[in-house]
Amino acid sequence: MDPLRKIELEDMEAISLGGAFLGTGGGGDPYIGKLMAEQAIRDSGPVDVIDVDTLDDDALVVPVAMMGAPTVMLEKLPRGTEAIAALEALQLSLGRKADAIFCIEAGGLNSTIPIAVAASVGLPIVDGDGMGRAFPELQMVSMTMHGISACPMVISDEKGNALALNTVDNLSTEKFARVITVEMGGAALIALYPMTGAEAKRAILRGSMSLIHSIGTIINSEQRANRNPAIALADKLNGVRLFEGRVKDVQRATQGGFARGTCQIEGLGPFEGEDLTLRFQNEFLLAETDSGPRAMTPDLICLLDLENGQPITTEQIRYGFRVIVFALPADPQWRTEAGIDLVGPRYFGYDFDYRPLEALNQ
Amino acid sequence: MDPLRKIELEDMEAISLGGAFLGTGGGGDPYIGKLMAEQAIRDSGPVDVIDVDTLDDDALVVPVAMMGAPTVMLEKLPRGTEAIAALEALQLSLGRKADAIFCIEAGGLNSTIPIAVAASVGLPIVDGDGMGRAFPELQMVSMTMHGISACPMVISDEKGNALALNTVDNLSTEKFARVITVEMGGAALIALYPMTGAEAKRAILRGSMSLIHSIGTIINSEQRANRNPAIALADKLNGVRLFEGRVKDVQRATQGGFARGTCQIEGLGPFEGEDLTLRFQNEFLLAETDSGPRAMTPDLICLLDLENGQPITTEQIRYGFRVIVFALPADPQWRTEAGIDLVGPRYFGYDFDYRPLEALNQ
Repeated sequence: MDPLRKIELEDMEAISLGGAFLGTGGGGDPYIGKLMAEQAIRDSGPVDVIDVDTLDDDALVVPVAMMGAPTVMLEKLPRGTEAIAALEALQLSLGRKADAIFCIEAGGLNSTIPIAVAASVGLPIVDGDGMGRAFPELQMVSMTMHGISACPMVISDEKGNALALNTVDNLSTEKFARVITVEMGGAALIALYPMTGAEAKRAILRGSMSLIHSIGTIINSEQRANRNPAIALADKLNGVRLFEGRVKDVQRATQGGFARGTCQIEGLGPFEGEDLTLRFQNEFLLAETDSGPRAMTPDLICLLDLENGQPITTEQIRYGFRVIVFALPADPQWRTEAGIDLVGPRYFGYDFDYRPLEALNQ
Repeated sequence: MDPLRKIELEDMEAISLGGAFLGTGGGGDPYIGKLMAEQAIRDSGPVDVIDVDTLDDDALVVPVAMMGAPTVMLEKLPRGTEAIAALEALQLSLGRKADAIFCIEAGGLNSTIPIAVAASVGLPIVDGDGMGRAFPELQMVSMTMHGISACPMVISDEKGNALALNTVDNLSTEKFARVITVEMGGAALIALYPMTGAEAKRAILRGSMSLIHSIGTIINSEQRANRNPAIALADKLNGVRLFEGRVKDVQRATQGGFARGTCQIEGLGPFEGEDLTLRFQNEFLLAETDSGPRAMTPDLICLLDLENGQPITTEQIRYGFRVIVFALPADPQWRTEAGIDLVGPRYFGYDFDYRPLEALNQ
């Protein structure tokens, strides 16, 4: 299988930036993931990115990821070997080796840790992911909509504990894995959704690694030209600049293994006199003003630094930050009834029917 | 291997009574376990009880048990197949079949469920257990003192969820299994501490099934003769009748997967004017009066009905019950430094150094 491209050391800057953008505030600190992937590429060489269609139908594709509250991940750095331990334990229980690594989500740590694992074990990585963005819960992937089980799943920690899950459905996988993650100290490494090549071709959201790379490249080059990347990104991604302002309040708590909270922004420039509130559970899920919602999950809500366009994660927000709130339409799969059931506003407890970004901002 | 005896249908009454007594208030409702074992014996025939020394050194011995708060077990009856599912999943992960079933503890449900499993799968049960009584946590077994790992362990529920644990030590096994049990609704079925015959010969507390049977037989025959069994039990078991009185207060909460609480008893007869407080976490762990402790874990504290000597579990206690508080010396293994570290009063948060029952009641 000819790779689409190779991920070299010098690509990691753009990938971590693009991943932080698509991470919609979650997915963990991109800097740590970048360091891990860079180290692995330095030690073991570049990683092949492959088109899912080049996989044999009976190939084994395995996503690896970090699970937990991003606020914890910042303080409990992975050694880098836990994710490989999770992959190896899963391979052992399946009785076979993986043929390709996969990203469960496109965002932050979880688009860079799989690169580190792929480099270390010498496997290619599939150009795609299960979310087309980041979401906070394990069942929130396109694979669930295609009837693919998250199990067998392995969850492991830095101490050497490893648990294998076989649950009756993917929501149960999430519930068990979440309490185990909390018991592991708030963050854990996981290998799950083992898929055949045929299943992956049917179920994954395609092109994410390429998209992340090109978003990161835009942000990088616009920053170098001293332009705010928001304009170029809006153009490239069919996005909406929802709001600009200054962060005036952040409420944040680590609850049940998640970073939950709200962020209030007072308008600047054309938005002077208005307030916008962001609500998050690891990721930004709802943006609303006094006149009602302006963007809601599954559409992507991204927070960028007003000066340099740098993506800001939910755990990085601080009082006084001057920011742009940017929104993008979700992948069409998420806008189906099955998609809205899985990741729509009501699932997260927001009392709104889903309305697309385009309808909310005509 | 010639069995020591067979457990027939008519033995289950005595076994459930004796198990409730050694359960020291915990181990779950003995009536439910009795029904399960009776049904299994009716369906599949009697169970051979074997001496551990008759096992081959490389035989595989597997304990099965119910885990969780006894208060929950009363309302969430096991179907009977979950324990077999846990055993089968463990056998699958070990790549071999068990040669004998074993009781992790001597008490309540956990001395009867293994009989039900043994009957159903056609295996003998070893005459012994890991506690010589009941204790609330998984690591509190003689096997821990002998360096035997609780893992691989399987935990399963009635919905069909099954998780396999591989942890760095037995205390970690307990912590992970406990949060999983809570997520499973407060009660779960487990198979753990897979042991070779050689390990079992070295590590287990011997003779428990026979002891349970003989205690139950004493209680039964004394009840039939309209005598309170406490006298005969004190004689047979080297026990102490600590206190007699009426329950005047019960505080009980299901916390962190345990039934925790206290029970206050006001003295009757020779104990008039005195109060005794029992503290429990699933099992009775401490008995104290105003003048100080009278019995403490790991020594056994049993509560019996004052009229008929029926054992009373922590979830059965009610205001107004007239009771005998009965105490027995723990197995000598528990009175070693390693034993006190695992199950002594300080582990449970009671601010006392362990003192043997005999020293406290000279």
